[in-house]
Amino acid sequence: MAKKNILIIGAGGVAQVSAHKVAQWADEFGDLHIANRTKAKADAIIDSLREKGHKMPFTSHALDAMDPAAVEALIGKTDAKIVINVGTAFINMSVLEGCIRAGAAYIDTAIHEDPAKVCETPPWYANYEWKRRDDVAKAGITAILGAGFDPGVVNAYARLAEDEYFDKIDSVDIVDINAGSHGRWFATNFDPEINFREFTGTVYSWQGGEWRENKMFEVGREWDLPVVGKRTAYLSGHDEVHSLSARYKDADVRFWMGFGDHYINVFTVLQNLGLLSEHPVKTAEGQEVVPLKVVKAVLPDPASLAPDYTGKTCIGDLVKGSLDGKEGEVFVYNVADHKDAYSEVGSQGISYTAGVPPVAAAILIARGTWDIKKMVNVEDLPARPFLGLLGEMGLPTRVIDATGDHPL
Amino acid sequence: MAKKNILIIGAGGVAQVSAHKVAQWADEFGDLHIANRTKAKADAIIDSLREKGHKMPFTSHALDAMDPAAVEALIGKTDAKIVINVGTAFINMSVLEGCIRAGAAYIDTAIHEDPAKVCETPPWYANYEWKRRDDVAKAGITAILGAGFDPGVVNAYARLAEDEYFDKIDSVDIVDINAGSHGRWFATNFDPEINFREFTGTVYSWQGGEWRENKMFEVGREWDLPVVGKRTAYLSGHDEVHSLSARYKDADVRFWMGFGDHYINVFTVLQNLGLLSEHPVKTAEGQEVVPLKVVKAVLPDPASLAPDYTGKTCIGDLVKGSLDGKEGEVFVYNVADHKDAYSEVGSQGISYTAGVPPVAAAILIARGTWDIKKMVNVEDLPARPFLGLLGEMGLPTRVIDATGDHPL
Repeated sequence: MAKKNILIIGAGGVAQVSAHKVAQWADEFGDLHIANRTKAKADAIIDSLREKGHKMPFTSHALDAMDPAAVEALIGKTDAKIVINVGTAFINMSVLEGCIRAGAAYIDTAIHEDPAKVCETPPWYANYEWKRRDDVAKAGITAILGAGFDPGVVNAYARLAEDEYFDKIDSVDIVDINAGSHGRWFATNFDPEINFREFTGTVYSWQGGEWRENKMFEVGREWDLPVVGKRTAYLSGHDEVHSLSARYKDADVRFWMGFGDHYINVFTVLQNLGLLSEHPVKTAEGQEVVPLKVVKAVLPDPASLAPDYTGKTCIGDLVKGSLDGKEGEVFVYNVADHKDAYSEVGSQGISYTAGVPPVAAAILIARGTWDIKKMVNVEDLPARPFLGLLGEMGLPTRVIDATGDHPL
Repeated sequence: MAKKNILIIGAGGVAQVSAHKVAQWADEFGDLHIANRTKAKADAIIDSLREKGHKMPFTSHALDAMDPAAVEALIGKTDAKIVINVGTAFINMSVLEGCIRAGAAYIDTAIHEDPAKVCETPPWYANYEWKRRDDVAKAGITAILGAGFDPGVVNAYARLAEDEYFDKIDSVDIVDINAGSHGRWFATNFDPEINFREFTGTVYSWQGGEWRENKMFEVGREWDLPVVGKRTAYLSGHDEVHSLSARYKDADVRFWMGFGDHYINVFTVLQNLGLLSEHPVKTAEGQEVVPLKVVKAVLPDPASLAPDYTGKTCIGDLVKGSLDGKEGEVFVYNVADHKDAYSEVGSQGISYTAGVPPVAAAILIARGTWDIKKMVNVEDLPARPFLGLLGEMGLPTRVIDATGDHPL
């Protein structure tokens, strides 16, 4: 059978990583296409692939990914069988629609967002993606939602606990600690607009069989994790809570993100002044401006942080449950290094952890292992094939269980 | 002789105070005219005058004060003999030009600024206002620069020390403490654009016979002042340093402004992120925006703070010098109350202290006491008439000298 062409949509830091991983695993695929609103950014990624000596066929394209017909046409033109959507969170539904029409597999790494809305009613997936389940099944395509690290790998970590540790799951606490340093006075690790939008709305968690609402930075907890040590993480809203809560209805599902005092201070000032608002304000001169877009404009481009980024990330799931009535817990995690990521693919660790997993998912689709012809979230699929492949691809899984701290 | 008509340009919080003071001292003047870019704001001030029962003739006008011909025409039309300019700091030179052409006296309360420049070379007055000295003298009009509180009353405080305490002045330290509370998370007491522009550039002070340069918040000193107690104030750039240094060449002239930690933190975040810049940035969508104008747009309108403002301000001059070779010091100061100011004229204390003095200057011009037919700064005129009148008008002066703390 002919190898499948792959199309990456987006050309930011995560797309850079995904492209390099596709190139490293070129034997699994046919040609690589990269499409972006600004074609020059896709060209820059292709240049960086060539610098690393990769030789598979690369082609860049300009694409308005908000237009399903344009997506459909590009899939047709490139004969892509798998689409990895790592563009802005605003394009999911139009790219998915293009895949449905053109019959290509769809993979993304973050939930769809409407630019005009922040933090909609839970579960978030039910507002957009899950409404297309029937259409995806009818079209006979595979759609894997949220296949980055978090969401994505952490969903597989929960599924691993289900598959191999417990017959009843009581809680899934996902903890995301970035102990790295970018050396700037302040910067966000990915698109500031998306980054801040995560924290300005209600923090939803699934506890006691219902949605709980908190404010950002309202609930903090100190964690003591491998490599990064003691860190305070805060109950935060995140995509994976909105799918894991459907599979593990009787468990508490929470997401904790680590923040330093400096980040919290800057965030608090911007938030309290109204500068993180997505609603336009009018200047004294009558110009209509969205404050958040101005904040984004003055902050460092996240992609520019990579060369100087040092330190490590630790992201994992603490899963508590019981097996045959006996209670236990397991911590499933990965540690990634910013400098190593930059040396390997020219991006920092946050982009690395987000950009590798969708390529693993693409390989599993290409191989047929995950080509399930329907729409799923990552925890709906067996975890071992995904985690095993990720280990080979640079994101090894470790486990702390009753036997100690060991590789999966 | 017919009483002189008076024209107030501007319709912000300071203009509100000046208008009420003119109305309270209506016997000194002919008609009151208020002109502003947006006429509705001038109308609102006139409404507030009528609510207080004032009955002198009031007229509002729309005016583009950046256009000298328009200013000249309005002076002609209103037959105004005295113009109080309490509009934005960008209109000084066009309003002054209008006064020169039309033969009206000119009073302002803050130095001219070019919107495109921050913190020009010292002395600031030499960049714009003082260049027109000859033209003002030739036209035979009176122009009193910087006749607010600081600059203005604090310049008169220094002159008082010269007139009544010392034959040699060694230092003039002006200290401005606002110990009031507006109850908002964050707000500036006057136009945020002007407020922040004061602090983003070089801090100039006159020490040891030369200009010294510091950064904002680099040099702090704890002061223990009447009523407001112990407060930290920071060496800051301010207009009056740029005129007092010309009269008191051999003295150190410094300006200290009190800031709480919260203000400094917010300022530091905004400044370090680049959000206080007057240079346009381009958003991802290609819109050109001046960050500082967006910050202004999200902050509370300073005029809106007045109803809830409580607490007091203390502003004064610590002057050190010697008389017949004997060293000494005197602290000349005023304490104002935010709530009292609001009850009396519908503005908070910062606007009150800035808006009363130019009306005192206007009365002194109307009476002939200060109608000196040339351009001066406040310290160039005898201090007693001004400070005495201000005492009657609601801004009493107190003095701490060898005999203790007593009214002037």
